[in-house]
Amino acid sequence: MKYIIPLFALVVMACNTTSQNADSNLTSTVEPITDPLPSWNEGANKEAIIQYVKTVTDKNSKDYIAPSDRTATFDNDGTLWSEQPLYFQLFFAIDRITELAPEHPEWESEEPFASVLNGDLNGALAGGEESIVQLVMATHSGMTSAQFNTIVSTWVDTATHPVSGKKYTNMVYQPMLELLEYLRANDFKTFIVSGGGIDFMRPWTESVYGIPSEQVVGSGLELSYQMTENGSVINRLPKIDFIDDKAGKPVGIQRHIGKKPIFAGGNSDGDLQMLQWTDSNEHLSFQLYIHHTDSVRETAYDRESPIGKLDKGWDEAVEKGWTIADMAEDWNTVWPE
Amino acid sequence: MKYIIPLFALVVMACNTTSQNADSNLTSTVEPITDPLPSWNEGANKEAIIQYVKTVTDKNSKDYIAPSDRTATFDNDGTLWSEQPLYFQLFFAIDRITELAPEHPEWESEEPFASVLNGDLNGALAGGEESIVQLVMATHSGMTSAQFNTIVSTWVDTATHPVSGKKYTNMVYQPMLELLEYLRANDFKTFIVSGGGIDFMRPWTESVYGIPSEQVVGSGLELSYQMTENGSVINRLPKIDFIDDKAGKPVGIQRHIGKKPIFAGGNSDGDLQMLQWTDSNEHLSFQLYIHHTDSVRETAYDRESPIGKLDKGWDEAVEKGWTIADMAEDWNTVWPE
Repeated sequence: MKYIIPLFALVVMACNTTSQNADSNLTSTVEPITDPLPSWNEGANKEAIIQYVKTVTDKNSKDYIAPSDRTATFDNDGTLWSEQPLYFQLFFAIDRITELAPEHPEWESEEPFASVLNGDLNGALAGGEESIVQLVMATHSGMTSAQFNTIVSTWVDTATHPVSGKKYTNMVYQPMLELLEYLRANDFKTFIVSGGGIDFMRPWTESVYGIPSEQVVGSGLELSYQMTENGSVINRLPKIDFIDDKAGKPVGIQRHIGKKPIFAGGNSDGDLQMLQWTDSNEHLSFQLYIHHTDSVRETAYDRESPIGKLDKGWDEAVEKGWTIADMAEDWNTVWPE
Repeated sequence: MKYIIPLFALVVMACNTTSQNADSNLTSTVEPITDPLPSWNEGANKEAIIQYVKTVTDKNSKDYIAPSDRTATFDNDGTLWSEQPLYFQLFFAIDRITELAPEHPEWESEEPFASVLNGDLNGALAGGEESIVQLVMATHSGMTSAQFNTIVSTWVDTATHPVSGKKYTNMVYQPMLELLEYLRANDFKTFIVSGGGIDFMRPWTESVYGIPSEQVVGSGLELSYQMTENGSVINRLPKIDFIDDKAGKPVGIQRHIGKKPIFAGGNSDGDLQMLQWTDSNEHLSFQLYIHHTDSVRETAYDRESPIGKLDKGWDEAVEKGWTIADMAEDWNTVWPE
């Protein structure tokens, strides 16, 4: 049925060009046929997005923006895919620790590795940021960039989320996939600007989001080039080069893109500076916060959450009139089929 | 006349489809009509470029490469535009020192500034790298990214080269503009990967080379984001963040692009590692060195030049069979009209 109705309506449209031209109301009645955001419920937020895109792509509008300036940046964790109960990249690190344990007998008595191997996540993360850095370095450095790419690709193809049982790349948000596609169809260039690891995302962002590796901005380790007996390699060093979070996001945008976005989407306080930076664009800009309100289909969290905290950002969004999408209310579908 | 002959030939082609199909020699005689590289003389190097592009874009070839993997990276100084007798970015720094001098009376007695203000370039650069860093920091940091963009744009629009008297952006190489366009017409994504300043290049690369800011990789300063009373800004700090030269080029490519190029062009030893990295691609790849052999139309220099030295790179190119374009021999035109 889904296909029959639009097709029928299109035939009606094609046979009624005269009356359409004479009555613009008829045209707008027919419009929902080509709904670019079918997983978004009708309402103020969906309307705001569509109205914005129509305005800046309308050559007759005073707010028209040329395609070369249509830069859209999106956070990843909690904005394009889930992030609960832990960032998926941490699940990757934990899975790798388990896999690499036979080569590291010393981990049996060394924290945070010992807790990971005992399945005690709270214990593993008890050391806070320092523990996380240790887990990341042990699993993300000490190999070439090509080797890391293969490791991540294999994990993404096979690993499953401990709560949902789904593959991680199936835990992306269908409404956001539609939004990315809708923006690109209107000559926006879509980028990821995430606190997550740049080289952890790149192996799968093109197939999952349609975003190629050169349009991914993220946190990264120091790299070194080396000509070996077996050819050229890039080594991943155990030292953080850049944290693409909070005030790092506008910096990451300037470094990688060199243009101020006109559209930015995020879900946490870590995205606030990116939204502020976008809001300072001389062109008409759009700021979108995803508010995780859906405890049935996903997880409800905001001001008090250790992961993806939305507190200052929420207040500033309300104050500045940014769009706050309510997952429970605005999305009729959360996950891709 | 330029237009009349091809048009006439096309008419002949259209009226002779039978004989063309019967005689493939006739088709190849007609081919130069659509010469994608008219400023390149016929010869082995031009043929190698065209043959490479035809091969990797031919779906029936065993060496076919999908568009998403068609990444081409080019050095800027000496490869896309001139670099003699000094990198143009140093002329920019010198022009800025002169312009800023009234605000800095202390420069009258402080090197390297005093020498710049006395028009003594050799004196200004006598301190080597340290002097250059001082000149760069005094002129490239201490302002916002938006202010720096305006400063560079104004300079590019108005400044002229001290020897040629031309605007700097008129000192780009016509054959390379054609090559960039030819690659893009064949679904390559073209990037600049330069030792020059990333934010010095971005204000003009789109209009001059057709390369948008997000496809420019270069050296850069540390940046910081700040929310001020007048809104969000990014400040340019007086500290080098990254040098995109020599072994830094493959690292810059990995950071910004995340894919190994299949085509790379350079002109100096500073590009050698980028060419090696490209040469290690599992796909069929192409390495191009521009050899500055033309003392009449440009400047002839290679192994002994302090700027754009081509020595180790030349030897390795010969050893590995990379393409070495000879400016005097291969280019019938150097500058755009």
